[in-house]
Amino acid sequence: MFSGGADGNGHLTRPRRPRRGGVGGGGGGVMVFPQGKVDSGAQPHPAAPPCTDYDMAYFKAYSHLGVHEEMLKDHVRTSTYRNAVMHHQDLISGKVVLDVGCGTGVLSIFCANAGATRVYAVDASDIAIQAMEIVRENELSDKVVVLHARIEDVIIEEKVDVIISEWMGYMLLYESMLGSVIFARDKWLKPGGLILPSHASLYMAPITNSQRYHDSIYFWRDVYGIKMSSMMPLAKQCAFMEPSVETISGENVLTWPTVVALVDCYTIQAQELETITAAFKFTSMLQAPLHGFAFWFDVEFNGPVRQKSKKQASQSLDGDKQNASPSSKKKKQDVSIVLSTAPEDAPTHWQQTLLYLFEPIELNKDQNIEGSVTISQSQQHARFLNICVKYFTGDQWYVKESVMR
Amino acid sequence: MFSGGADGNGHLTRPRRPRRGGVGGGGGGVMVFPQGKVDSGAQPHPAAPPCTDYDMAYFKAYSHLGVHEEMLKDHVRTSTYRNAVMHHQDLISGKVVLDVGCGTGVLSIFCANAGATRVYAVDASDIAIQAMEIVRENELSDKVVVLHARIEDVIIEEKVDVIISEWMGYMLLYESMLGSVIFARDKWLKPGGLILPSHASLYMAPITNSQRYHDSIYFWRDVYGIKMSSMMPLAKQCAFMEPSVETISGENVLTWPTVVALVDCYTIQAQELETITAAFKFTSMLQAPLHGFAFWFDVEFNGPVRQKSKKQASQSLDGDKQNASPSSKKKKQDVSIVLSTAPEDAPTHWQQTLLYLFEPIELNKDQNIEGSVTISQSQQHARFLNICVKYFTGDQWYVKESVMR
Repeated sequence: MFSGGADGNGHLTRPRRPRRGGVGGGGGGVMVFPQGKVDSGAQPHPAAPPCTDYDMAYFKAYSHLGVHEEMLKDHVRTSTYRNAVMHHQDLISGKVVLDVGCGTGVLSIFCANAGATRVYAVDASDIAIQAMEIVRENELSDKVVVLHARIEDVIIEEKVDVIISEWMGYMLLYESMLGSVIFARDKWLKPGGLILPSHASLYMAPITNSQRYHDSIYFWRDVYGIKMSSMMPLAKQCAFMEPSVETISGENVLTWPTVVALVDCYTIQAQELETITAAFKFTSMLQAPLHGFAFWFDVEFNGPVRQKSKKQASQSLDGDKQNASPSSKKKKQDVSIVLSTAPEDAPTHWQQTLLYLFEPIELNKDQNIEGSVTISQSQQHARFLNICVKYFTGDQWYVKESVMR
Repeated sequence: MFSGGADGNGHLTRPRRPRRGGVGGGGGGVMVFPQGKVDSGAQPHPAAPPCTDYDMAYFKAYSHLGVHEEMLKDHVRTSTYRNAVMHHQDLISGKVVLDVGCGTGVLSIFCANAGATRVYAVDASDIAIQAMEIVRENELSDKVVVLHARIEDVIIEEKVDVIISEWMGYMLLYESMLGSVIFARDKWLKPGGLILPSHASLYMAPITNSQRYHDSIYFWRDVYGIKMSSMMPLAKQCAFMEPSVETISGENVLTWPTVVALVDCYTIQAQELETITAAFKFTSMLQAPLHGFAFWFDVEFNGPVRQKSKKQASQSLDGDKQNASPSSKKKKQDVSIVLSTAPEDAPTHWQQTLLYLFEPIELNKDQNIEGSVTISQSQQHARFLNICVKYFTGDQWYVKESVMR
């Protein structure tokens, strides 16, 4: 009998991505934990009944804690934020900071340690209760004010010099909190204030991944000498209908990426996020099967002086982007701190987001793949992301549609 | 923002174990898949609305397929069953076989290939539809009869010579289908018929696992220079309140295991499974922190001639077991085929089931740990397993209670 959740590849059984709660999340009651009483004591007592309210609170905490543990253990993520805070210490020291979706409060404490006079740390999730404890433990209660509320409901009696937030979701936009950052910016940020991160770029590239295809699909051709090819249509559906979050390497990527979206956090408007469309034209560098398309992102931590004009920012989301220059990231890294989730960089918990095709397409070297991608928030389910890639290659049009749930 | 499901250790975010459906499961409608139509076609069409009935069917199939893929890819499991079938070919060839919870039908086809005249392959889950296709694909439709129904509802017009089933869950009994095997045995097995597997043993041993404790609990002491010890009580709850399914090694095990349950599939009665209690007395071989208790099992594939008497079998579940002899498994392996999920053997998808203590207990070499373990099906939720370990060591009594959900 089956007893597990993870398949051999770790692909199929990724748990549904939980909502963190975060600034847009649900809030809710305070949990009280009878610390240390559960597995010790001289008095045996009868087996606990399952699924009490206590258990429900526990499960809620359980998912939250695992979430924050994973984010903190993502060293690329957390240490890049720390570096960015130290890099902008002159703009943070002696200033007021707002941390949108503070979680355990780690970014708030970085800012306090960098000399911020006051930090407002806001999170609607129950993790805010833990953040208060952590702030107290680090003797920063006079500087870091933890607010357990939605950013939309919070009352802050002053303008702030800095907004810091770690709002990025899978493929940048999935369940992202960027809307909350925009809300906070428009309500509290002083003119000329600093936003960390300041800019974000979403990339897309065609990929080849024969091993993944083989493991998930061709596996069924011969299972211990038994033919199971009749499973293959279902296997394709199961493995490739949804976007897949997994780590690929630079070797899987067939071309330079295209830029799907450029986000300037100083100027972007919420409605610009509702639908993003970008045209692309890829030229395969290799003769290889095309197995799908990968998405990844980076964010930059630039000061307000380097902010783009409104005109430039709106151009960046108008669907008329050029392929990224191969050297574009290197140039950026010379002048600013970048947190990258690209296949060729150190892995992060965001990994890459893959749209796999049901059938590989054999590409020749220099063969073109032209088309467009549209990413839109689902009308029915706000947290879902509809992704539609239309592409033309080898004299044929294709459409790959996915819903990221 | 958090975007993932798996923590750094893979411990916290194991998805809830799905019910396979299986012979005790829900049955349900036939899925029809528009094969290959989803991601190709000349006509672009608008983004699909989320969560249609089609999607629901897809998700159902998705979980099923991942489950079966993992089981088939567990080479220890599947190849041991194949070896067991071949080992008993003389008792299968020319005979009638019943496969309880057939899944993809792999065990049924092993039996057909071993010469069975007829195999009844029964599964209530929709995977039975795929099993029919697989049987057809292997041109065995004249021998293997797939029945898409609960074993309790199925009509089979003859007695069978062999029952084969892969019914084992985590720590043997979690969501196990042994009750269905017992039902099938009592209804259809000819006197002297063969049951594969024939016997199962559930083991328990104290373990030490400093790395795991460190990664999950002490991690919070210093996070990028920030004190987070206030998270530790919650972290202990989150990491150690539920049984944890993970792979440990023989080096984590502090003593020889005790046998918690011996199951003779030829004689066991369903009511014997409701509550299992076993006393234990361990003597630590090392000076080391006790971090918890591990459970694992093995199953044997013996012929009916080696079956134990009813008296022996009932003795095996009376809670008065001796510690397993260190050489007991080796002896068994000389005379029969054994599928083992022990820490010192090759890993399987069952891994081991761990009950971690909130606080480690420092053990001296030769220190005794005495007590008892009770494993019972939850009255409120039949699929839950209550586990209660009471133990005395270093002049103190402790109780560790867990619910496996």
